[in-house]
Amino acid sequence: MTDALVIFTPSGKRGRFPIGTPVLTAARQLGVDLDSVCGGRGICSKCQVQPSYGDFPKFGVHVAENALNDFNAVEERYDRIRGLKAGRRLGCQATVQGDIVIDVPPESQVHKQVVRKAATQRDIVMDPATRLYFIEVQEPDMHDPTGDFERLKAALKDQWQIEGVTAALPFLSKLQPTLRKGEWKVTVAAHKGHQDTTVQLLDIWPGLHEDGLYGLAVDLGSTTIAAHLCDLVTGEVKASSGRMNPQIRFGEDLMSRVSYSMMNPGGDKEMTRAVRESLNDLTDGIAKEAGIDPSLIVEATFVCNPVMHHLLLGFDPVELGQAPFALATSGSVSLNAREMELDQMNPNARVFVLPCIAGHVGADAAAVALSEEPNKSEDLVLIVDVGTNAEILLGDKSRVLACSSPTGPAFEGAQISSGQRAAPGAIERIEIDPVTKEPRFRVIGCDLWSDEEGFAEATASSGVTGIAGSGIIEALAEMRSAGILDASGLIGSSEQVGTPRIEPEGRTNTYVIHDSSAQGGPRITVTQNDVRAIQLAKSALYAGARLLMDERGVDTVDRVVLAGAFGAHISPKHAMILGMIPDVPLDKVTSAGNAAGTGARIALCNVAARNDIEKIVRQITKVETAIEPKFQEHFVNANAIPHKTDAFPHLSEIVTLPDVSYNTGGGDAGGRKRRRR
Amino acid sequence: MTDALVIFTPSGKRGRFPIGTPVLTAARQLGVDLDSVCGGRGICSKCQVQPSYGDFPKFGVHVAENALNDFNAVEERYDRIRGLKAGRRLGCQATVQGDIVIDVPPESQVHKQVVRKAATQRDIVMDPATRLYFIEVQEPDMHDPTGDFERLKAALKDQWQIEGVTAALPFLSKLQPTLRKGEWKVTVAAHKGHQDTTVQLLDIWPGLHEDGLYGLAVDLGSTTIAAHLCDLVTGEVKASSGRMNPQIRFGEDLMSRVSYSMMNPGGDKEMTRAVRESLNDLTDGIAKEAGIDPSLIVEATFVCNPVMHHLLLGFDPVELGQAPFALATSGSVSLNAREMELDQMNPNARVFVLPCIAGHVGADAAAVALSEEPNKSEDLVLIVDVGTNAEILLGDKSRVLACSSPTGPAFEGAQISSGQRAAPGAIERIEIDPVTKEPRFRVIGCDLWSDEEGFAEATASSGVTGIAGSGIIEALAEMRSAGILDASGLIGSSEQVGTPRIEPEGRTNTYVIHDSSAQGGPRITVTQNDVRAIQLAKSALYAGARLLMDERGVDTVDRVVLAGAFGAHISPKHAMILGMIPDVPLDKVTSAGNAAGTGARIALCNVAARNDIEKIVRQITKVETAIEPKFQEHFVNANAIPHKTDAFPHLSEIVTLPDVSYNTGGGDAGGRKRRRR
Repeated sequence: MTDALVIFTPSGKRGRFPIGTPVLTAARQLGVDLDSVCGGRGICSKCQVQPSYGDFPKFGVHVAENALNDFNAVEERYDRIRGLKAGRRLGCQATVQGDIVIDVPPESQVHKQVVRKAATQRDIVMDPATRLYFIEVQEPDMHDPTGDFERLKAALKDQWQIEGVTAALPFLSKLQPTLRKGEWKVTVAAHKGHQDTTVQLLDIWPGLHEDGLYGLAVDLGSTTIAAHLCDLVTGEVKASSGRMNPQIRFGEDLMSRVSYSMMNPGGDKEMTRAVRESLNDLTDGIAKEAGIDPSLIVEATFVCNPVMHHLLLGFDPVELGQAPFALATSGSVSLNAREMELDQMNPNARVFVLPCIAGHVGADAAAVALSEEPNKSEDLVLIVDVGTNAEILLGDKSRVLACSSPTGPAFEGAQISSGQRAAPGAIERIEIDPVTKEPRFRVIGCDLWSDEEGFAEATASSGVTGIAGSGIIEALAEMRSAGILDASGLIGSSEQVGTPRIEPEGRTNTYVIHDSSAQGGPRITVTQNDVRAIQLAKSALYAGARLLMDERGVDTVDRVVLAGAFGAHISPKHAMILGMIPDVPLDKVTSAGNAAGTGARIALCNVAARNDIEKIVRQITKVETAIEPKFQEHFVNANAIPHKTDAFPHLSEIVTLPDVSYNTGGGDAGGRKRRRR
Repeated sequence: MTDALVIFTPSGKRGRFPIGTPVLTAARQLGVDLDSVCGGRGICSKCQVQPSYGDFPKFGVHVAENALNDFNAVEERYDRIRGLKAGRRLGCQATVQGDIVIDVPPESQVHKQVVRKAATQRDIVMDPATRLYFIEVQEPDMHDPTGDFERLKAALKDQWQIEGVTAALPFLSKLQPTLRKGEWKVTVAAHKGHQDTTVQLLDIWPGLHEDGLYGLAVDLGSTTIAAHLCDLVTGEVKASSGRMNPQIRFGEDLMSRVSYSMMNPGGDKEMTRAVRESLNDLTDGIAKEAGIDPSLIVEATFVCNPVMHHLLLGFDPVELGQAPFALATSGSVSLNAREMELDQMNPNARVFVLPCIAGHVGADAAAVALSEEPNKSEDLVLIVDVGTNAEILLGDKSRVLACSSPTGPAFEGAQISSGQRAAPGAIERIEIDPVTKEPRFRVIGCDLWSDEEGFAEATASSGVTGIAGSGIIEALAEMRSAGILDASGLIGSSEQVGTPRIEPEGRTNTYVIHDSSAQGGPRITVTQNDVRAIQLAKSALYAGARLLMDERGVDTVDRVVLAGAFGAHISPKHAMILGMIPDVPLDKVTSAGNAAGTGARIALCNVAARNDIEKIVRQITKVETAIEPKFQEHFVNANAIPHKTDAFPHLSEIVTLPDVSYNTGGGDAGGRKRRRR
């Protein structure tokens, strides 16, 4: 027998190779996913494999003890200095001596899967656009006077079969000193665009670069900017960080920012500058938090709504404020970070901005589609990404529809009297006893309920400071269940409801959840205005979903996914009591966490996903809420809690909402009547 | 007869077309070079043609008076408002009604030839990388929500068959307002790279853009920066301008600038900043001079020696100061102007830097090769580009060799006691009577010789202020011919030569050309040091040429081309008396003017030339003077005037140089002896 049988697990790929073939070579010839940065020089250790010995009836093979060569000098040296795990071999040094079964452990795979915690979420397959390559460059020769860059390109072609290589000035100006420092052995970071065949070199380090490569996945919202710093090799999230969007000072919601730009010449430039400065600050901060050199951040991906998209890229958003809501560009945008004045990362860092779906349905919705894949769903799924604007997707593998709806910032705790951002001391869960109308609650940073022993001590340092976005949903839903709120959204008076916790406030009523004013703390209340703000938001959300259902010709959906940073914290039952989402069985409501941010991470870690999302976006049917007359009708009907006309049969099976009505003179209804005059 | 015969001149292309076919359509189908920016909408007038009527025996055709349609409404309107030359028609509006002969005048051709004045120089065929396209873009539609950019790309594809279109942020941020201002009719400037298939949009204007497009061809020398502003449609040079290279303050010659960088951390950055600032100033100035909006400058090409190349691009030139003289990159460099901080032209302007041949033979030599085409020469041509560094090319269509030689700035008038830049009052021509040893001369700005009547009056305003670079060559050659200088370069004493114009100066002698000190003007002299400086420069030049001849295995060349701004003014006879160039028949010495600058213009106006020069450069054999032992030997032998060992038979036929020797004690020879101790 001249050739030996080599079987790789877990792929099951197999082939026969001459005695003496390195395992890495066999893997490459079979297309087995085995990593290598140094190209088989025995220095990067990325190609570690785990040989198995003995009988393998499954494969019909017996592996002898001497099926691989003994440790050679390179492996011995490596093991001595760095240490190899027991049983492990370097794939480039181990050579085949007989039939052998070789396992490729996950960390040695290039296209490793980053398993996410929740079972409902899809894994990310690592296939980053930017990778590291170790090369040996030929030294210059006076008699063949090519440039250092030309010889480096030749090395990439010879040693890695990479062609079409380009580099910008910051790379080229580093080239000569680095080649000499590394004694003609260097590592380069090469970026392969998803749409073209060129390869751009982003950075170069002397010798083998072992400090990793990083990317930033940014979810740029109207109110908050959230970023994940990801290891581009392992996919691991090294740090996550957020900032308030500094554009808030120009307008809380998107349309007020568009107005600012229309009313103030150069206003769009001001807002662009503000968000880019904040991104620089965020980048600097997140690198410090992760303890990495920020110049190792070589890529960033962005998801955002269309107005943020335009302001980020420096386009005046004025066209997005008026029909036909034309985007400057709807396709994805690939560019250098410094073109966007992002100067806190690698000077050659690349940016990918996801495509927009339409003038009101942005790259954030595209990212949700990338993450949640409604286009692959067997059943009809409604995905709502709740933020200052709600992005709504409805569909299955036959067709996907999308729209956005202007919910306003109420769901995020803005415009709510006791609203606050999610931080220790903020109420995130609440229950109201239907008989006594007494509340109990939990705050962020403490696992105890407010009526449990030790709560006061446990929250002494944080205090009870306000209501987080998710808490306000629960509060209203519980108030409705307990009969404090009627279906029209009116808070009954203390007498009507029968609890001293309700206090009159002008012509309306206010429900007091917690009062620490005696101790100099805040009074945490839900006012009639708070209810109205949430009603407007939830009506917009529901109306958007309903519009998509009309377009699709259905009255029900099979399941609902709540997305958005805030979506993760909404209790499905409470969301349904409030009528935020159409009625479905409770176990058919799941949370996708920050799906837009996940989409940004997927685009960051997997270059093929960039092509996928461009394709998906083109196939989505866009529905424009702003000009659809039925939207108004749906909006008005959705104002009731849970709804004026739509039935909620699944909800009725588990909750019976009290049939109360407080619209009997005075109060808010009276207020409305007065305004009509 | 259904189809009519259409014959285009001057191409002679012909074909039959259905009655009613527009002339532009016929031209396109036949591949006739007929311009159009508006794509046949009758508004750009670029497609004007001249129909001919009557008998054409040469073509075997008779053209009837009604062979074309009458003026239609579009042509009538155009003629009324703008005026059409007599007999001219708009090719897009004129339709074929019978057999017809149609002339395409030069100004209607895209690939028109820009005829240069001197017959020896090659014409430039216009084929610029950046062209204008008028397009009509579909208006946005809420129900098909593509971005404005996506619809613009679709228009370019439909109306001009242009695909692979990209645009940077400055273009995209202008896109929406311009489309609306132009009511969805716009002109774009599209740049097609010479190496890739992508098309980059550089700018956009509402409606038909009629203010032209411009490019800058820059010859960046060690001492001077010269730029031509070219019309990218006609090829016309609209303005030419120059600046001193501000890097002179860091070192006069290249090696002193490299030293500055080695000795001063960040010194290279200082020099890079200085030259870029000067280029911005130059761009601003040349646009003002030509009276154009500088944002219409959409391209720039650069030629320069390797050290200037590195300092322009921001690479530390330190490696160019030591063997093996490795370039950071030897290939051409294409980039955006703003990457080089050139901010006085269009924000999306593209830059093309010609490739370098070797560490000492730069893009300037490549440009000379592009302009003078030694690789296409039937006979063996020696091309010397004289500047602070001399670039030397030797070859014919079988093989081309190149080297550079450090002549220093003496040829440019620096290090010469009475040297000055070429300006009114500078001596540019000189003759010395071999009997009386009396000089007569001409100065720049006056056509009279100094011994002609009226010279004093004519030069009263400028004065006689110094000697220009070309004047110093003539002065020395004339001094040698008149026996004032001996073959070793010594100036004889007043007694030895027999003229009171020679005055002792220390141990050496000085020849006085002109003395206006009595009138408070300068004394213009040639000192022994001046002779030495020119001897060093010419020895370096000759030795370089000789080295290439060795490599090629020849003792003579067929012809010599003098290039460089200064080369244009050197008299061939004087250059040969001085022994700057090898002996050839005088009529075989021609001047190519600023050949490097011409090469920059060719690369600017003709995108195919960019590929040509990359290919040519790879085929040139480079000879490194700095490490070639024979260079020293050639250098020493070339010190004599004209030469110590090489024969100058052609020169001898027309000039007999006096056989004098002043090396008899004292003087410079004595000085040399003393230094030996």
